[in-house]
Amino acid sequence: MTSANAYDVTKWPVGNPHEDIGAVINSIIADVKIRQASRDVNDGGKPGAVIYIPPGDFRLVTQVLIDISYLKIVGSGHGFTSSSIRFNTPAQELEQWHEVWPGGSRVLVDLAPSGAEDDASKAAFLVERAGNPRISSVEFADFCIDGLHFTDAASNGDAENSYRNGKTGIHLASANDSFRIKGMGLIYLEHGIVAYHSDALTVDDNFVAECGNCIELRGMGQASRVSNNLVGAGYDGHSIYAENFGGLLVSGNNVFPRGRSSIEFSGVVRSSITGNRFHSFYPGMLVFSEHCSENLISSNHFLRDREPWAPMTKYDNGLDDQFGLLHLNGDNNSVIANHISESIDTQFLEPSYEKPVIIRIVSGRGNYVANNHIVATTEASQTNDAPNSACFSTQVEAILSTRNLTTLDVIAVKVEPGSIQNTILDSGSDAQVVIDRAVNAFRGTPMPGQQLGSAQLEPT
Amino acid sequence: MTSANAYDVTKWPVGNPHEDIGAVINSIIADVKIRQASRDVNDGGKPGAVIYIPPGDFRLVTQVLIDISYLKIVGSGHGFTSSSIRFNTPAQELEQWHEVWPGGSRVLVDLAPSGAEDDASKAAFLVERAGNPRISSVEFADFCIDGLHFTDAASNGDAENSYRNGKTGIHLASANDSFRIKGMGLIYLEHGIVAYHSDALTVDDNFVAECGNCIELRGMGQASRVSNNLVGAGYDGHSIYAENFGGLLVSGNNVFPRGRSSIEFSGVVRSSITGNRFHSFYPGMLVFSEHCSENLISSNHFLRDREPWAPMTKYDNGLDDQFGLLHLNGDNNSVIANHISESIDTQFLEPSYEKPVIIRIVSGRGNYVANNHIVATTEASQTNDAPNSACFSTQVEAILSTRNLTTLDVIAVKVEPGSIQNTILDSGSDAQVVIDRAVNAFRGTPMPGQQLGSAQLEPT
Amino acid sequence: MTSANAYDVTKWPVGNPHEDIGAVINSIIADVKIRQASRDVNDGGKPGAVIYIPPGDFRLVTQVLIDISYLKIVGSGHGFTSSSIRFNTPAQELEQWHEVWPGGSRVLVDLAPSGAEDDASKAAFLVERAGNPRISSVEFADFCIDGLHFTDAASNGDAENSYRNGKTGIHLASANDSFRIKGMGLIYLEHGIVAYHSDALTVDDNFVAECGNCIELRGMGQASRVSNNLVGAGYDGHSIYAENFGGLLVSGNNVFPRGRSSIEFSGVVRSSITGNRFHSFYPGMLVFSEHCSENLISSNHFLRDREPWAPMTKYDNGLDDQFGLLHLNGDNNSVIANHISESIDTQFLEPSYEKPVIIRIVSGRGNYVANNHIVATTEASQTNDAPNSACFSTQVEAILSTRNLTTLDVIAVKVEPGSIQNTILDSGSDAQVVIDRAVNAFRGTPMPGQQLGSAQLEPT
Repeated sequence: MTSANAYDVTKWPVGNPHEDIGAVINSIIADVKIRQASRDVNDGGKPGAVIYIPPGDFRLVTQVLIDISYLKIVGSGHGFTSSSIRFNTPAQELEQWHEVWPGGSRVLVDLAPSGAEDDASKAAFLVERAGNPRISSVEFADFCIDGLHFTDAASNGDAENSYRNGKTGIHLASANDSFRIKGMGLIYLEHGIVAYHSDALTVDDNFVAECGNCIELRGMGQASRVSNNLVGAGYDGHSIYAENFGGLLVSGNNVFPRGRSSIEFSGVVRSSITGNRFHSFYPGMLVFSEHCSENLISSNHFLRDREPWAPMTKYDNGLDDQFGLLHLNGDNNSVIANHISESIDTQFLEPSYEKPVIIRIVSGRGNYVANNHIVATTEASQTNDAPNSACFSTQVEAILSTRNLTTLDVIAVKVEPGSIQNTILDSGSDAQVVIDRAVNAFRGTPMPGQQLGSAQLEPT
Repeated sequence: MTSANAYDVTKWPVGNPHEDIGAVINSIIADVKIRQASRDVNDGGKPGAVIYIPPGDFRLVTQVLIDISYLKIVGSGHGFTSSSIRFNTPAQELEQWHEVWPGGSRVLVDLAPSGAEDDASKAAFLVERAGNPRISSVEFADFCIDGLHFTDAASNGDAENSYRNGKTGIHLASANDSFRIKGMGLIYLEHGIVAYHSDALTVDDNFVAECGNCIELRGMGQASRVSNNLVGAGYDGHSIYAENFGGLLVSGNNVFPRGRSSIEFSGVVRSSITGNRFHSFYPGMLVFSEHCSENLISSNHFLRDREPWAPMTKYDNGLDDQFGLLHLNGDNNSVIANHISESIDTQFLEPSYEKPVIIRIVSGRGNYVANNHIVATTEASQTNDAPNSACFSTQVEAILSTRNLTTLDVIAVKVEPGSIQNTILDSGSDAQVVIDRAVNAFRGTPMPGQQLGSAQLEPT
Repeated sequence: MTSANAYDVTKWPVGNPHEDIGAVINSIIADVKIRQASRDVNDGGKPGAVIYIPPGDFRLVTQVLIDISYLKIVGSGHGFTSSSIRFNTPAQELEQWHEVWPGGSRVLVDLAPSGAEDDASKAAFLVERAGNPRISSVEFADFCIDGLHFTDAASNGDAENSYRNGKTGIHLASANDSFRIKGMGLIYLEHGIVAYHSDALTVDDNFVAECGNCIELRGMGQASRVSNNLVGAGYDGHSIYAENFGGLLVSGNNVFPRGRSSIEFSGVVRSSITGNRFHSFYPGMLVFSEHCSENLISSNHFLRDREPWAPMTKYDNGLDDQFGLLHLNGDNNSVIANHISESIDTQFLEPSYEKPVIIRIVSGRGNYVANNHIVATTEASQTNDAPNSACFSTQVEAILSTRNLTTLDVIAVKVEPGSIQNTILDSGSDAQVVIDRAVNAFRGTPMPGQQLGSAQLEPT
């Protein structure tokens, strides 16, 4: 402990952090509030504190309530390992495993039942404060929050694959400013990060996977950044979700399956999705709902193929292939310079006799879709029931088996009737684009033998 | 203290870090120099040191002078809160606030007057060393530098909104290599970071806001990275500025208002501005001055709307709407795949009777402007005088009110006379682009009913 | 030491970390294994540990073998300085230098000869474990691994410029999951980071330079991220290399010379190279070998000019200018919205009488090359033999001398015979693109006076 404001949960005299780290952290926060109780005089602030969680197993029975600004909780390890593989491995094989649980600076979420039904009550870490100013600069860094088990009783004996346990990792309930969530590992939680009313939030370099939902920005918010994360939600949750946001930047993330959506914006405007890699097993991997406007989707790589892992093949997100791999509602959005790969055999399409839709503008005007490269092929992958790392090898090998695939016929872009003044350029050939050309602008990607060399044009 | 090279300002026997952290750090540096005085023998180096600043208020009266390589100064909290909202809140309301100052590991800049007028003398942290090699690998991480007050006496009673106090946070004066500035909070400084002659500099994930100028790369430099920051300067300063640089990468930043410019390059070449989100209240949000060449501007989201917050509506950057939202001087630059939104009522344009210019090539040849989507509408926002977080809500709601806006007539691209051999593709319709087509190449974005399907072309 | 799982190499009772940090860390790992030997009961894990390396010189004689999950090794400084400049500076001048070696938390790699010839045996840090599950969440952060000297005896007295010494910094030998390598400095190693069989690997914000090869992802792997690094390899090694990978995201890196390639993919599919800045002195700066498919290359800045520094002008990568600056083998890749600058005098081209090739599709079908801006000029730079920081100034000044350069004739895109169904749009004029238009699609960038305004088109 280097100063009064630097705490270590294993050194604090109240409580036992291995039995209930929640009670210990709440006791530390109470101490900070007592020591920093007086209002500032002559530029003096209430600087907050840092609480260190060393590597170790720390059970959390009591919810942590953070209601002071400038609190940083930091560990020394995000501690991710795949619990999903573990829970689909036979017990006798597990006996040979080196370890079976996540690690690092690990918080085991084992909240005592509160009787409350609201999501905030189910969070391991709740940030909430009334009054002014908005709570500022709380930081979470480099530790692990492990929900331990999925437990949905209605899952027909498949509870550990249900992605439901009523647990949230971090829940920001009241308006907040300049928070940072960095380097965290969030595992086996129904909700990883839920942030209401965020301004200038940073969610960077986290490992949020095998959670029902991973990163949810709710309520409304502005001027935030979700960048450089590794993310992958369950089959009926969102990997990245934002609603009623302006000025959000989602960049540099590697979003892997599953996820009902890889990313969904609802009522989001003037925001960016750039330079991400998205991989999904279902249609609707990107969804704009509730009228999203003036957003930019550029330089992303999208891949949709089929679920290769036996324990998960019975699940999907319930959407069919007419829904659109990118499903867009709203006006004046830009979809530029993306690569989109779809790899699936026609027998697995739903409905199997219709060409799947890649980019679908459901409604809206003024959208600009240009220079997207859509590659659709029959699939190379195969289902695999290997319980653990063999799955990784099979999946990688399937991905790598991309030579000599047969082309799959698709609708590259579909602009639904009633949508007008949209512009579709070089994102599919004439035959691949469904659009009312009288009320929308269209230039098909040239075909071999049809090239438009500038020399063919007359000087004006 | 874990080893002789790991210091904690609150444990050092000389000085009181709460009264003058500058004197304490200088004393520590002197100690490092004494202990690491001998030149290396048999691969032995002068490894430098780490100085830890725990959360707390630490006044800086004496400038820190860093003249050794491999010094890392690290805290446990960037500690940002909005001082701008605070200084525009009535005193009686402030009495109800939880806290009114920034926090975390907070350095309060209160430099004793030195009599010197140069910028370097006014910096809290000055890095300067003569001789060889260039000073290397100094690192600043995860603490707060707070300039406390703006104080311009000529500001007609609005000193705290003047963005002037003669204070700089970090000033790199001599040629430097492989520095890192990460996770910092810089607040209420006239200059946040000023870096002269930088090679392989990293400025990543900082929160630099409510500063006169935020990040300035001066002198000349190369091969550096300004990425993943949250940034917003005052109305007459730069959010990001670079001069005489080669190989700069500006990516993944969320740059919010205000800022005379969101980003300005002066004499910069072969550099990148990619995947950023920029928001401004004035024209000239991106400026290339002094002949910038061979730079790439791609996959950025630009938004310009009108100042919504009453205390700031009297200020602007003095530029009119003919200046260009993107104002470019120079040759062979690329502007590709950006989304640009302008939202303002014609009554607020200057001059109000002329169509505003979005991308303006003032002079130069060989520039390539392609596949930019420009959306111009009358505005949804309204001025708001709410003193604190209500401003956030109003701003967000205004941003979200983007349905059914009226289209605003603009000049999408203007290529000034004398500029030749530029190429403008799919970035505006014929009617929206002003260009001499005899000496520049142009293809207008197709309009509905004018589509160029590849089937319309004759095979060659 | 804050808990049993938090170690400091300078506090450990076994061994002397300054004499052999390898033996100390191995002793600590043995202690972790003893203390965490029991298998989990009731959700209890084996949380691993953190090992701290403070700033200082720590010789490594014994290889570190990591075979436990959740181990984090962390320092307080990446400690890079240019050893290349130092070894090309006259001894008498060095006597005036402030320091001549890298610093920070510095590991001096001085491995005892093992007799083994495999690469894994030559690594300072080896991660290897048999059985299940894959080893997870090992983290390296914020320290320096210094190979000290290059030593190739066959280098005709230029051993320190040979980039060969048989040393590797970090070698991941067995299948691994969710590793993180962040903030490291890797210097004067023949191989910086070599990662076999990685899943969900993060390599972020490292400084890997003056290494023979910098970042190599080998074997096979998936869903990983190489982002925000500063990287530059030797003239015969790779700056970034990946083989047999799916779902790799390479983004936001600043990759400077030299490097036989700035980036090479071999058998990589469905991966992204976006938003990077690449600078090279040779052809073949980006190479796709062994059939790479469905990858996205977008929003990157590429610069190739000529080696300006006298000690290195005798070296190159042996490729000629017909090889292609971007050399692509494979199907269905996307090259969209990049800026590519080549600056060289014709006398230095090889062969000097042929136009150099910028983008070359050696073989493959279905590739999509659109909206790339290729700028080719005679060079502004000059060779310089200044031994140290003067080189920086000369290089920067050369870069900045980009006005009034003469245009260099190039082949912007060359699609080799036998390659079919490729699409080349707006990436070069008719005269600059070599392609069989009967079997590939082509639209030349319009030329001045040839513009295709949408008004010229007939409504359909």
